[in-house]
Amino acid sequence: MQPKPNIVHLPVYQPGKPVEDVKRELGLTEVIKLASNENPFGSSPKALEAIRNELENISIYPDGAAVELTNAIAAHFNVNADQIIFGAGSDEIILMIARAYLCPGDETIMADQTFPQYKHNCTIENAEIIEVPLKNGTHDLPAMLARVTDKTKVVWVCNPNNPTGTINTAEEVESFLAAMPANVLVVLDEAYCEYIGDPSFPDGLALLKKYPNVVVLRTFSKIYGLASLRIGYGIGRPDVIRSINQVREPFNTSRFGQAAALAALKDEAFVASCREANKKGLVYLNAKFAELGLEAFPAYGNFIMVDAKRPAQDVFDGLLRKGVIVRGGHKKYPTHIRITVGSQEQNEKVIAALTAVLQEIAVKV
Amino acid sequence: MQPKPNIVHLPVYQPGKPVEDVKRELGLTEVIKLASNENPFGSSPKALEAIRNELENISIYPDGAAVELTNAIAAHFNVNADQIIFGAGSDEIILMIARAYLCPGDETIMADQTFPQYKHNCTIENAEIIEVPLKNGTHDLPAMLARVTDKTKVVWVCNPNNPTGTINTAEEVESFLAAMPANVLVVLDEAYCEYIGDPSFPDGLALLKKYPNVVVLRTFSKIYGLASLRIGYGIGRPDVIRSINQVREPFNTSRFGQAAALAALKDEAFVASCREANKKGLVYLNAKFAELGLEAFPAYGNFIMVDAKRPAQDVFDGLLRKGVIVRGGHKKYPTHIRITVGSQEQNEKVIAALTAVLQEIAVKV
Repeated sequence: MQPKPNIVHLPVYQPGKPVEDVKRELGLTEVIKLASNENPFGSSPKALEAIRNELENISIYPDGAAVELTNAIAAHFNVNADQIIFGAGSDEIILMIARAYLCPGDETIMADQTFPQYKHNCTIENAEIIEVPLKNGTHDLPAMLARVTDKTKVVWVCNPNNPTGTINTAEEVESFLAAMPANVLVVLDEAYCEYIGDPSFPDGLALLKKYPNVVVLRTFSKIYGLASLRIGYGIGRPDVIRSINQVREPFNTSRFGQAAALAALKDEAFVASCREANKKGLVYLNAKFAELGLEAFPAYGNFIMVDAKRPAQDVFDGLLRKGVIVRGGHKKYPTHIRITVGSQEQNEKVIAALTAVLQEIAVKV
Repeated sequence: MQPKPNIVHLPVYQPGKPVEDVKRELGLTEVIKLASNENPFGSSPKALEAIRNELENISIYPDGAAVELTNAIAAHFNVNADQIIFGAGSDEIILMIARAYLCPGDETIMADQTFPQYKHNCTIENAEIIEVPLKNGTHDLPAMLARVTDKTKVVWVCNPNNPTGTINTAEEVESFLAAMPANVLVVLDEAYCEYIGDPSFPDGLALLKKYPNVVVLRTFSKIYGLASLRIGYGIGRPDVIRSINQVREPFNTSRFGQAAALAALKDEAFVASCREANKKGLVYLNAKFAELGLEAFPAYGNFIMVDAKRPAQDVFDGLLRKGVIVRGGHKKYPTHIRITVGSQEQNEKVIAALTAVLQEIAVKV
């Protein structure tokens, strides 16, 4: 049994330590996890209610076409129903795009420190992966454009970028799209866009109207607080959505995911309150980083990447011993850690822990 | 934007009409759906309770490695944790096997009227698909074996077969595996195995101990009644599971799916009661088909395929008008319909409706 030669080097996902294990091993009574950009405020209570109301249908397959949720998203964004596709998180839409569009040897372009699922899925398809260095933690769109050839099929733009949290502006993205050959699919992954109020951030859906080679990815895992349920969506031109649909499994999202997303979409007050709290959290964290003499990338999502000026693994370990889990391990940023914006109480705890840890570890020159 | 040439002919999943639409359009107050082999008795109440208990974690990603559920399955079947993989239904495990093992041009063998996701996924991988006719509605394992070449990578055996409901015996499957080259992966899809008490049915997990090229697929969508949640699993040798894991998305199953499956697995009384009710339902349906002069394939799962001796579409339409949804459209069986075993009340309704419909439609010679 020989698997595909191009997948044998792929890492198997290694789960993080459960919070309970961390507590026991380190003798801690409280551990806070600010590592996965989850919503610290949970979800809309209406989403919880929607799940309770679906319990009676537990043995019944979900609506494979997610008709009700599709119609709600179409109305919300003023697009047509045939422009929308759902996935088990936007992760699965990335998988489906790679699987529908990439043949072995096709070229695909992405940043060299971005969301890892682009590279993972393109590797499985045996595509030629071209990684373009970030510039000041931001997608270098002109450099990415310069790498386009007649073999380029898909270009991935994560905006805001994960893990750096930076954005490309509307002007930058529009120039990029205007110069992009029309036969290259450009994926605008906007998983964190609902957190942004900045007018310089591009409206992916407006760009889609002008550039039919765009697919916009969104998710219910972040500001909507439904990460547990695995539901995200893509919006594109009908022919693109049709191709992605052709590789979709018939029942790829759950009944509960669909029901909770429908309720969450309608609770705009919850979304607004999370956006406001996140903005305050970013202001607080940035101020504290400045006090600590640390520089962070400009953050637009619900996370912030800061240069701890010490080996990231040491800082990670030090924070873990104090009961705070963050994210390190970014190959291009060996002294940076990524911290999810938590509640004010959590933010204060992470700053207190970080302040202590920085005193314990020598600055890396 | 050109998708892969080998997917452009694939059909896009067309959803069935929602029960509410059928009611409105046909002026019916009650519609029963016996089309998707769902559990008419719902799920274990313990699964519902497990979901309620997880609601507080709605915004938190699931455990990507499903450690607790993995350990429970390992203990339940006396296998090691590294022999188990979970998917969003066994559908997704089929996808992952195809994606991990099949390169363009590799050969893969399956029955010509079986679960459609094998062909769907192998087509996307651009594999050479060899479909072998069923024999009396049953996998013709010797004929499938005869089609093995040095290019064969994966062979799919659906046991009981969907849609015919027939089984291959332990003796047949063991002979097949004994003669199969050790480098060919044999997928034993046993989605309905928990319904079977017949000692002639093979124990896939015992076969796995003897034949390392076997992967056994199981699901929580059928007897466990969790179709809404999309969770199934595969059991194989560690090296095979590792390869499948290499193409798995990090968070491919939901928190609620994992929690409900864990609870459902432990409620053996619920499983036993569903198995007994299903057996009684099959006895009832077979007796009534005999009274109606109809022949059915020997049924081992929670569904039965009967030859209505009339065009299946006409019978489907006739039943629909009487408020009963079944499954037709099987290209190799143009006069057969597949009926899910329901509750006794549902079974009586489908027989009453079928009796009336058979009188309305002329026998097809």
